[in-house]
Amino acid sequence: MTAEIVSLPRGGDMPASAFLAQLIAVIRAEDGYGSWDDKPDTDLLADFIVTRQERRDMPIIGDPDPDLLWRVEKFYDAVGLAVERHSGVMAAQMSKIHHEGFGRIVLIAGRLVVLSKHVRDLNRFGFESYAKLAEAGEAAVQDAVKTIARFPEAAQA
Amino acid sequence: MTAEIVSLPRGGDMPASAFLAQLIAVIRAEDGYGSWDDKPDTDLLADFIVTRQERRDMPIIGDPDPDLLWRVEKFYDAVGLAVERHSGVMAAQMSKIHHEGFGRIVLIAGRLVVLSKHVRDLNRFGFESYAKLAEAGEAAVQDAVKTIARFPEAAQA
Repeated sequence: MTAEIVSLPRGGDMPASAFLAQLIAVIRAEDGYGSWDDKPDTDLLADFIVTRQERRDMPIIGDPDPDLLWRVEKFYDAVGLAVERHSGVMAAQMSKIHHEGFGRIVLIAGRLVVLSKHVRDLNRFGFESYAKLAEAGEAAVQDAVKTIARFPEAAQA
Repeated sequence: MTAEIVSLPRGGDMPASAFLAQLIAVIRAEDGYGSWDDKPDTDLLADFIVTRQERRDMPIIGDPDPDLLWRVEKFYDAVGLAVERHSGVMAAQMSKIHHEGFGRIVLIAGRLVVLSKHVRDLNRFGFESYAKLAEAGEAAVQDAVKTIARFPEAAQA
């Protein structure tokens, strides 16, 4: 009997996920010239994946580069749009990130902070798999929607 | 009879104002080596003054320099501290400023946006007189305190 080694592609399979669909739409919206038209979705999201081994090889402290900050922004843009689809309330993103990779990201709807995230090690921003990326996005959306349900007047103000 | 020309100092007289006192304290707090100890308060706030004539001479569009952004930050830090003194609620500042000088500044307490200001022409940030500076600060504080009174739970969340 021979053992068969099945090696999954990096990031695993892409699950069916409303959040991933939203994130892909956000990214494709920036592709004004259609240069990514032939790129499969997995390629567009490939840089959101940081495997366990890759993370181990990264320095704990490091200055996040502009591409990485762009990905963080797209992630929270996608969360904001998904929140709007769920609650009808528009949420805008603001962030204050130190160049060494720590700081705070918020989504604001009306007078309400619907999501507030203190980040650190932002230079290692990424997810082990597409499934984990989808999960993190959905969790953020659910959390924001709950906060809006808790303070509906402030969110509409 | 000879006409006497009374020329007021630039920015006029400094009024007694809790906001100005707070702003001066915020600025002096950054002076770790005491190099400004001998500077009078009017000198510390002199760059907050932009007279009518000076404003006229400024371009409408222009990239705000770091010193100016520092002053904007100190202004809203002072507002945040005054809000805390009035309401007991701590408010932190976040801003998203385009390099051409427009953007948004918010003060956040708990889950509440206690102050939200869309700015433009930030390169011309300044006040005609110390009295106007005091007035603008007090108005921002009053506005924020009212917002906290309107949504106390979100501010404590």
